[in-house]
Amino acid sequence: MVEEKFPDGSAWMGGEFINLSEAKISVLDWGFLRSDATYDVVHVWNNRFFRLDHHIDRFYSSTKKLRMPCKIERTELKRILAGCVKRSNLKNSYVEMIQTRGMSPTFDRDPRKSTPRFIAFAIPFGWILKPENFNKGLDLAISTVKRISPESVDPKIKNYHWLDLVIGMYEAYDKGHYTTVLVDNNNNVLEGPGFNIFSVDDQGLNTPLSGVLEGITRQTAIDLAKELKIPTKEISITSEKFKNSKEAFATSTAGGIIPITKIDGKVIGNGTMGTITSKIKDLYWAKHTDPDWSECVEDLL
Amino acid sequence: MVEEKFPDGSAWMGGEFINLSEAKISVLDWGFLRSDATYDVVHVWNNRFFRLDHHIDRFYSSTKKLRMPCKIERTELKRILAGCVKRSNLKNSYVEMIQTRGMSPTFDRDPRKSTPRFIAFAIPFGWILKPENFNKGLDLAISTVKRISPESVDPKIKNYHWLDLVIGMYEAYDKGHYTTVLVDNNNNVLEGPGFNIFSVDDQGLNTPLSGVLEGITRQTAIDLAKELKIPTKEISITSEKFKNSKEAFATSTAGGIIPITKIDGKVIGNGTMGTITSKIKDLYWAKHTDPDWSECVEDLL
Repeated sequence: MVEEKFPDGSAWMGGEFINLSEAKISVLDWGFLRSDATYDVVHVWNNRFFRLDHHIDRFYSSTKKLRMPCKIERTELKRILAGCVKRSNLKNSYVEMIQTRGMSPTFDRDPRKSTPRFIAFAIPFGWILKPENFNKGLDLAISTVKRISPESVDPKIKNYHWLDLVIGMYEAYDKGHYTTVLVDNNNNVLEGPGFNIFSVDDQGLNTPLSGVLEGITRQTAIDLAKELKIPTKEISITSEKFKNSKEAFATSTAGGIIPITKIDGKVIGNGTMGTITSKIKDLYWAKHTDPDWSECVEDLL
Repeated sequence: MVEEKFPDGSAWMGGEFINLSEAKISVLDWGFLRSDATYDVVHVWNNRFFRLDHHIDRFYSSTKKLRMPCKIERTELKRILAGCVKRSNLKNSYVEMIQTRGMSPTFDRDPRKSTPRFIAFAIPFGWILKPENFNKGLDLAISTVKRISPESVDPKIKNYHWLDLVIGMYEAYDKGHYTTVLVDNNNNVLEGPGFNIFSVDDQGLNTPLSGVLEGITRQTAIDLAKELKIPTKEISITSEKFKNSKEAFATSTAGGIIPITKIDGKVIGNGTMGTITSKIKDLYWAKHTDPDWSECVEDLL
C-alpha cells in the first residue's frame, strides 16, 4: 500500500489512545456509508481549551437528536480530549470529538442494529485564513448552491453533509475567489464551509437567524459584542444587504473572528479589517486566558 | 481495542486486495469528515454481475461531477470488482465502488489539495425486504422529512448524505412502520432509504421524475415495463395519489423489485404483491442469466 502522510496528532478510539495514523474506521461504518454521524470541534490555545463546555453541550445534544446519545460522561470526555492534546504535544490544537452510528456485523440496514462508535483526535490548530492574511481578509463568492435545508437536515445537529459546501467551493475557485457562502431558497446568505457570517451596519451586527449551524464562535461573537455594547440582530440577510455591509466577518473555531473584505468582487468597507471586527477579534483572543472562558489542558487529565 | 465482527467479504484499497476487516480509512479522509465522496453498488447473482456497465457509467459520471474523475479505466475497474467477489467466495453479492476526496497530509481545507482514494468491496447480497416476506410486502410511512433538495446536492451524484433518510427511518419506526419514503417541498413522494418508488394505476407505471437518484434498478423497471408493453410515466406523485395506487413497488439493487403493500397504514391493492409488480419482478430475475444484461465474474478477472 502507498504510505500516507499524516499531520502531527493523537487520537482516541475503542478505549485507548493511539497514533493519529492508526485512527481508522471500517468502510462499513454507517458514519462513512451514510454520513450517519455527528461531531464537534473545540480548540486549544496556549494549552487552554476555549469554551469546552459549550462544545460538549452541543455534542451531547446532537448525539441525542440522532438517537444515539453519547454514553461517555463529561469528566471522562474531557479526560479523553485532554489526553489527545497532551499526547500530541501541541500548544495550539484543533480537537474533534465524533460519534458515528457504527456498524452492524451483518450489514443490517436498520440503524438500531449498530453499535455507535466514539472517536476523538487532536491535530495542529488550523486557520480558515492564516493570521498574516487577516488584513487582506477573506474574498467570498456568493454561491448559486442552496445550503441543505433545515427541513431536510437540522443544521443544529453538527453534521458532515458538506457536498453543497464543497460544490460551492469549486464554484468560487473557478471564479477566482477564496471561498464561498451559500444561500437559502430566498437568496438570503447563510454560511460558508466551516464558518458563520456577520454583517456590520450602522445599527451594529447582523447574523443569519436560521438555516445555519449555531456555531460556538458565532455565539461568542454575539456575547463579546454585548460586552462591547454593540447590538446584534439575528435576522435574514439578503445577498444585496450582505454586499453592502460596512464591515463583515466570518466566525469559526478554525481561526476565530476572520475579516471578510470582498464579496462577489465588491470591496467591503475600505478593503481591510474593519474597526468593529478588529475590536471583537482582540477581545476574542483576550478571553483565551480568562478562566471563565477557558480551561487548562493539564487540569483535565 | 474491542474486537469487531465483520460480514464475509473482500476489499480492494491502495492497490491491493485485502480482508474486509482491514478495509479502513483514516478519520481524516474528507470522504468521512465532509462526506465528500461518491459511490455505486452493483450486485452479483449466481456469479454474474447485473448491468455492470450501467453502474460504472454512473460512477464515472458522479466522480467527474465532483471534480475528482476516477482514474481507473473500465477493464481494470471490472477486474478489481470481480477480484473482490472472487476472493469473497460469494455466489450472490453486493459490490460497492467508492471514491473519496482523500486526505491532505497537512489537513488543508482546500479539496484540491487532497489525493482522491478509491475503495471497492464485496459483501453478501443484502435485501431491503427478505424474499420470504415479499407477499407481505413493505409497510411504508410517508415522512414529514423533506429529501435533500437537488438545488443543494445533485441526487444524480450517488452520495452518502443520508441523515434525512435516517431521521425518516426513526420516525417510521416510532409509528410502527417498516421503512419510510421522503417527500419534496410540495409533498410529492420521492424516494426511500436505498430505493426508488413506483405507483401503478389504470394507465400503467408512475415514478417520480426529479429530486431522486436515477437508480439503475429504477431504469431497469422502466425498461422491463416497456418490454411487457406497460407504459411508464416519469411524473410528480402526490402523497394522496401514492396512497391510492392500485399496486406499488420499490426498486433497489438490494432486492430488485420489492412490493409495497401498505402506505401510512392504508392497504394497497389487496395487501399482497400485485400482478404487474409480480410480472416485472419475474422478468427482472429472468434477465440475470441473459448475457445482454449480465456478465460472468470469472470472465472479468
